[in-house]
Amino acid sequence: MARNTNLRWRLPVICLVLQVAMVILFGVFMRYDIQADAHWWLEKKLKNISSDIENDFYYRYPSLQDVHAMVFVGFGFLMTFLQRYGFSAVGFNFLLAAFGIQWALLMQGWFRFFEEGHIILSVENIIEADFCVASTCVAFGAVLGKISPVQLLIMTFFQVTLFAVNEYILLNLIEAKDAGGSMTIHTFGAYFGLTVTWILYRKNLEQSKQRQSSVYHSDLFAMIGTLFLWIFWPSFNSASCFHGDTQHRAALNTYLSLAASVLTTVAVSSIVHKKGKLDMVHIQNATLAGGVGVGTAAEMMLTPYGALIVGFFCGIISTLGFTYLSPFLESHLRIQDTCGIHNLHGIPGIIGAIVGAVTAAYSSPDVYGEPGLVHSLGFGGYKADWTKRMQGSSQIFGLLLTLAMALVGGIIVGLILKLPFWGEAADENCFEDTIYWEIPEEVNTVYIPEDLTHKHPAPVVPSIPMVLPSASLIPPVPPTTPVSLATPITSASLIH
Amino acid sequence: MARNTNLRWRLPVICLVLQVAMVILFGVFMRYDIQADAHWWLEKKLKNISSDIENDFYYRYPSLQDVHAMVFVGFGFLMTFLQRYGFSAVGFNFLLAAFGIQWALLMQGWFRFFEEGHIILSVENIIEADFCVASTCVAFGAVLGKISPVQLLIMTFFQVTLFAVNEYILLNLIEAKDAGGSMTIHTFGAYFGLTVTWILYRKNLEQSKQRQSSVYHSDLFAMIGTLFLWIFWPSFNSASCFHGDTQHRAALNTYLSLAASVLTTVAVSSIVHKKGKLDMVHIQNATLAGGVGVGTAAEMMLTPYGALIVGFFCGIISTLGFTYLSPFLESHLRIQDTCGIHNLHGIPGIIGAIVGAVTAAYSSPDVYGEPGLVHSLGFGGYKADWTKRMQGSSQIFGLLLTLAMALVGGIIVGLILKLPFWGEAADENCFEDTIYWEIPEEVNTVYIPEDLTHKHPAPVVPSIPMVLPSASLIPPVPPTTPVSLATPITSASLIH
Amino acid sequence: MARNTNLRWRLPVICLVLQVAMVILFGVFMRYDIQADAHWWLEKKLKNISSDIENDFYYRYPSLQDVHAMVFVGFGFLMTFLQRYGFSAVGFNFLLAAFGIQWALLMQGWFRFFEEGHIILSVENIIEADFCVASTCVAFGAVLGKISPVQLLIMTFFQVTLFAVNEYILLNLIEAKDAGGSMTIHTFGAYFGLTVTWILYRKNLEQSKQRQSSVYHSDLFAMIGTLFLWIFWPSFNSASCFHGDTQHRAALNTYLSLAASVLTTVAVSSIVHKKGKLDMVHIQNATLAGGVGVGTAAEMMLTPYGALIVGFFCGIISTLGFTYLSPFLESHLRIQDTCGIHNLHGIPGIIGAIVGAVTAAYSSPDVYGEPGLVHSLGFGGYKADWTKRMQGSSQIFGLLLTLAMALVGGIIVGLILKLPFWGEAADENCFEDTIYWEIPEEVNTVYIPEDLTHKHPAPVVPSIPMVLPSASLIPPVPPTTPVSLATPITSASLIH
Repeated sequence: MARNTNLRWRLPVICLVLQVAMVILFGVFMRYDIQADAHWWLEKKLKNISSDIENDFYYRYPSLQDVHAMVFVGFGFLMTFLQRYGFSAVGFNFLLAAFGIQWALLMQGWFRFFEEGHIILSVENIIEADFCVASTCVAFGAVLGKISPVQLLIMTFFQVTLFAVNEYILLNLIEAKDAGGSMTIHTFGAYFGLTVTWILYRKNLEQSKQRQSSVYHSDLFAMIGTLFLWIFWPSFNSASCFHGDTQHRAALNTYLSLAASVLTTVAVSSIVHKKGKLDMVHIQNATLAGGVGVGTAAEMMLTPYGALIVGFFCGIISTLGFTYLSPFLESHLRIQDTCGIHNLHGIPGIIGAIVGAVTAAYSSPDVYGEPGLVHSLGFGGYKADWTKRMQGSSQIFGLLLTLAMALVGGIIVGLILKLPFWGEAADENCFEDTIYWEIPEEVNTVYIPEDLTHKHPAPVVPSIPMVLPSASLIPPVPPTTPVSLATPITSASLIH
Repeated sequence: MARNTNLRWRLPVICLVLQVAMVILFGVFMRYDIQADAHWWLEKKLKNISSDIENDFYYRYPSLQDVHAMVFVGFGFLMTFLQRYGFSAVGFNFLLAAFGIQWALLMQGWFRFFEEGHIILSVENIIEADFCVASTCVAFGAVLGKISPVQLLIMTFFQVTLFAVNEYILLNLIEAKDAGGSMTIHTFGAYFGLTVTWILYRKNLEQSKQRQSSVYHSDLFAMIGTLFLWIFWPSFNSASCFHGDTQHRAALNTYLSLAASVLTTVAVSSIVHKKGKLDMVHIQNATLAGGVGVGTAAEMMLTPYGALIVGFFCGIISTLGFTYLSPFLESHLRIQDTCGIHNLHGIPGIIGAIVGAVTAAYSSPDVYGEPGLVHSLGFGGYKADWTKRMQGSSQIFGLLLTLAMALVGGIIVGLILKLPFWGEAADENCFEDTIYWEIPEEVNTVYIPEDLTHKHPAPVVPSIPMVLPSASLIPPVPPTTPVSLATPITSASLIH
Repeated sequence: MARNTNLRWRLPVICLVLQVAMVILFGVFMRYDIQADAHWWLEKKLKNISSDIENDFYYRYPSLQDVHAMVFVGFGFLMTFLQRYGFSAVGFNFLLAAFGIQWALLMQGWFRFFEEGHIILSVENIIEADFCVASTCVAFGAVLGKISPVQLLIMTFFQVTLFAVNEYILLNLIEAKDAGGSMTIHTFGAYFGLTVTWILYRKNLEQSKQRQSSVYHSDLFAMIGTLFLWIFWPSFNSASCFHGDTQHRAALNTYLSLAASVLTTVAVSSIVHKKGKLDMVHIQNATLAGGVGVGTAAEMMLTPYGALIVGFFCGIISTLGFTYLSPFLESHLRIQDTCGIHNLHGIPGIIGAIVGAVTAAYSSPDVYGEPGLVHSLGFGGYKADWTKRMQGSSQIFGLLLTLAMALVGGIIVGLILKLPFWGEAADENCFEDTIYWEIPEEVNTVYIPEDLTHKHPAPVVPSIPMVLPSASLIPPVPPTTPVSLATPITSASLIH
C-alpha cells in the first residue's frame, strides 16, 4: 500500500494554523493573574500580604519545573527505546507537548480559570496544562511509530479538548479529588490512546517488527526518561495540591510508593524469565507504576505503609501485564500498544482511582480534624452535609465517566485519524525515523591507534571516512581464518 | 600545515595559574553576603526579619539550580551533536564554565557587588556568574571543534572581562533592563563568537568536513541538551528578576514564547526540505529561539499573546537562518559558525533587544501603577523625571553598545588567539576528539546468542574480544552470497 | 569455575521478602510528621505559625529533588562508563537505592526520628535516607561488575544498618558536624566498599579486562552522571543544614570548591599523559572531588577562598590517585576498585573530615557571634562549656570511628557475600550485562540513501534487517581492494 508520507505542506500548514489560532485566542482571552501582574503591589496592600514569598510562584515553581522536565525529558526519552525512532520519539513528543500546553491553557482556562471574560494565568495553570499534556504523551505511547506528526497534532487537539471537559466534570461538577491524576491523566490518556490504536489497527505491522525492538544504547537513552520520571514523580503528584501539609504529604506518599514498585518489578521480571534474567522493558516502565497508582490518594491520609502497599501491587501487576497481557491484547483484541501504556498507565490508573475512592471514603473528621478536611482537601464547608461515603462514590463515578469519555472519544478521534490523507507511513515503514526526518548519510571513521601514529611523526589524518555504501544488500563474508588481534579485519558500521 | 597539539605543559600551566590567581583574588576580595554569613541572626534582628524563609536563598536557589543545569548540561550536551567531538563539547564546556564562573564572580563583583573594599557573595552573584558564562558557552558554539582548550580559556578570560564591562554600562550606567540577557548574554556572546571565528577563518576546513556532521546517536545526545535548555529557560529569564510578580511573569512569558517557537520551527523546517522532512539541527536549536527573543521583555508586561508572537517569529527566523543564512555567511563572509549561533543567539538576541525596547517604551504607570513601576522593574523614583520613551532609547543604545563591544572585543581576542603557539589543530584534524583526549582502543565483543550457549553446559566465555586492528585502510569485501540469518558474517565495529 | 548465575528464585525471593518486611515495619512504626499530617492546621494554630510557607517542605523540597536526582541519575549514569555494563550500572543502582531508602528511613528513624513509639516522617527524613543511600552507591562503585544483584541487596541491607549506627554515634552522641557527609557518607561508603572488594578479590579478573574499559558513547552516558552530580552537589551539601544562612553558605562553598576541582583536574590529567591528552576517567570523577572535600565544612565559615583551596587540592589529589594509586592498590593490595571510589570518595572524604575539624576548631564566637554559633551550627547552649578545640577533636574522633566501622563492617559483610550461593558471575564473565539481563538479539538495519530510493518510485522497504549470526568466532576478511565510496562494503554491526 503506497502512502504519501511527504508532509511538506500538510505539516507546516497545520502547525502555522494552530499557532496563529493560539496567538489570537490568547490575545482575546489570556491575562496575567494578579500574582504575575504588575499590580501585585496593590494586591499585597489590599490583602495585607506581608511578603513577596507568599506569591504562589514560590510555593509551586520548583514542582512545576520538575513536572515540565517529566513531560519533555521524561516522556520524550522514555520513548527513545526503539532502535530507529529516537528522533521521532523525542521530537514529536516535543511538538505535541508544545502545542498541547497552549491549547490546554485555553481549554482548561475556559472551564476552570475564567473570570470576567478572561482566563487568569499563573504558574498553577501551567502545571495543569503540563498535566493535561502528560495525558497526551501517554496516548502517544500507544501509537508511537505508527502515526504521522500531522495525525499527532490532530489527536492532541481533540484529546486536550476532551481532557478538559472530563476534568471539569470530575473536579468541578462532581467534586472528585484527583491530585496526581490517576483518573484524569493516566486512565483517560491510556484508554483514549488504546482506543485510537485499536481503531488504527494495522494487520501487517509485523513487516516492521524488527524495528519495534530496542538496541543496547537505545535502552540506555530510554532509562534517562525513566529515571527523570521516577525522581520527579513526587513533584507531579504534589504540584497542584493545597499549600502546606497536603503538598508535603503527597510528595512523601509518592516517593514511597515508587520505591516499592522498583523491588516488586525486579522480582516479577526475574520470575517470568526462564533463566531469571531481567527485562529492560519492565525496569523502564513498571517501576513507575507506583507513581500512577498513588496519584489520586497521594494527597490524602493514605499512611506511609498504605503508599508502600499500593506501589507493591502496581509493580507486580504492571510487570505481569507487560509479560502476559500485552501479547494477548495484540493477538486477540487487535490492540497494538507500542509502549505498553496499558500496563503502565491503564491498569495502575484504575487501581489508583479505586485506592483514591477507598481512601476518600475513609476521610473522616477523626483522621483530619474538621478544619483539616477543609484545609487539606477542601472537603467540608459546602460539603458539610455530605457523608464521607458519598465522596467515595463520587470518586468511582468519576472513574467510570473517565473510561466512557476515553472510549467514545478515542473511537471518534481514531476514525478521524483513519482518513487517508494525514501522511501516515505504510505498515512496512513504521517505527522508522527516515520517513519524517532528514538523516545524514552515516560517515564512520576508523582510528589509527596510538602506536601506529607514533611511527609517523608527520601529522597524520587521524580518521578515514567511510561513507556507508548504497548497496541494497550486505553480503556476508566467507569465514576464512580465526580472529587474531593482529589480523586486519573488515570493517563497516551501520546506523545505530 | 603541521601543528603541535601536545598541550602537556601549556594546558596545565594555564589552568593552574588561573586557579591560583582565583584563590588569591577571592582571598583578598570575596566575602559572604550577610544572608550567607553567620551573622544573619543579627541582620534578622536589626531589620526585623520575621523568618528564615525571607533569606534570598529561598527566593532564588531553585532558579539558580535550573540555570546551572542549563550551562553545564544544556550547553554541554547541545554541542555533542558532532560525531567525533562529544568529549570536547561536553568536557571543554565544563572547563570553560568552571573557570568562567569564578572569574565572572570577580569581574561582576568589582563592578556591581562591591561594598567597602569587598565583593559581597550570595546566590544572586552565582546566578549572574552563570549568566555571564552562558555568554561564553554561546561563543564557544561558533568556534567549536576549531580551537584548543588553551585558546578556549584565554577566550573565556577576555570575554568574561568584556561581558562584565558591557553589562555594567548597560545595567548600571545607562540603566537598561535586560533580565534574560537578550543583549548582554545572547547578542554579545553571539557576535563576539562570530567575530572571533571570522578572524580565525580556516580556508581548508572542508578537509575535516566529514566530521562536522552528526550521526544518529550523537543527535540524541544533543537533544538532551536542547530539552534541558528548553525546560529550564523560564528559570533563566526569571532568575535575577525582582521578587514576586516580576519573577512570576518572566517565567510565564518565557514558557509561552518557547512553546510557540517549537511549532513554527517544525513548520519551517518541513517547508524548506524538498520532501517535507524535518532537520534535527532546526529542532535542536531554533526551538530555543523564543527563549532568547523574550529575554529582555520577559519581566515586563509583555502580555501572554505578546510572548507567543515573539516566539512565533523567532522560530521562523532562526530556522530560515540555519537554512539560508549560515551557508551564505560561510561562503561569502568567511564566518564558520559550527553550531549556527548566529541563528539561535545572534538574530533572536537582536529581536529580543528591540522587543524589550518597545515594551519598555510602553511601560507606563497606566499599565503598572506608579508603585508597580518601582516594585516590578525598579523604574521610577530616581527616574521619576524620565519619560517612558527615554527608557526605550536607553534600551536601543544598550543594544548598539553591545554590538560594538562584541565586534571590537572579538577582533582583538581573535587576533590574540591567532598566535601560533596555543595548540590548535590543523585544518584536517578539526572536530576530532583524539587530538586532545586519550581515547582507548575500541574493544568490541561478539555475543554468542542464548541458543548456542545452551549447547555448551560448561561455562562459556560470553564474549570474544576483537581489538580494532591497526590497519590504516579498511578493505572492502567482495559481495559473494546473499545475507541469511544462518550465515556467519564478518564483523567489526568501529568507534561510534 | 562454573557458577550458577540464574537468579530466577533467589532475586525475586529476596526482593519480595525485603519489600514485605518494609511494609510491615512501616505499618508498625512510620507516621507522618505534623508538617505532613492533616493536623498541620492545628499545629499552625498552636504554634502561631503565620503561613504555610513555613512548612519545612518549602525550605527543603527543591534541595531534596536535586539530591534525589544525584542518587538515581547521577550515580546511576556515572557508572555506565563500562562498555557492556550499562544496564546493570543504572538498573542495579536503581534497585539498591529504591530498597536502601526504605530501609534507611527505618534505621535512621529508629535512631534519630523516634518519638513516642513512632518514626516521624517528613522531607527531612527523605533527604537523610537519600544521603545514606548515596553511601551505598559509593560502595557499589568499588564492586561494580563483580557482584550479583542479590549480593548487592544484601550489601545494601548491612551497609545501611552500619551507616545508621555510625551516623547516630557521630551526629548525636559525640555531636560532630557533618552536613555534606564527608565522613558519614563518603569516607564510610568508600572504605566499606573497598574492604568488601578486597575480601571478594578475584585473582583472574583480567579475563574480563577487555570489558572493564569504556567505549566512546558509554563515556558520554557517564558524563550525564558526572554533570548532574556536579551541578546538584551544592544542594547535597546544603540540603540538611539549618535554615537561612547555613543552607545558603553551604551551597556557595560547595559551588566554589567544585569549580576549582575542575581546573586542577584538567591540569593534572594533562600533565600525567605523555602527550598531554586528557583522560575521560579523570574528568568524570576527579572534578567532583571538591564536592566531597568540602562536605563537612561547607556549612561553616570556611570563607570563599577556603572553599576554592579545598577544591584545588582535591582535584589534584584525586587525579593523581587515579593515575598512580589505583594501579598500586590493585597490584599490591589486591583491591579491585572498578570506579576508583578511593580517589573520588575515599581520600577526598578524609580531606573533608580534616578540613571540617580544623574549621570547626576555629568556630569561635568572634566569627559567628554567640547566637550565630547556635543559629548556624547548633553549637553553644548545652555546649557552652565546650572549648572550640574540643569540637575539632570531636570531628577527628568521628573520622577515626567511621574508618573503623567501615573496615570491620566491610570485612564481615565481605565474608557474608563470599558465600558461594549468591549468584555472582565467574571471573571471565564480569562486567557483562548478558549474565543478568535479557538482551535482545541485535538487529541492525542498512539504509538505502535518498538517491537510491528516488529511482524506485514504488514504496521500498527502507531497511534490511540483519540479525546477528550465531557464529561463535568472527572470521577476518582478507584485504582485497582499497576503500572507495562507490564500493559495496561488508557490513555487520555488533552489540555496543
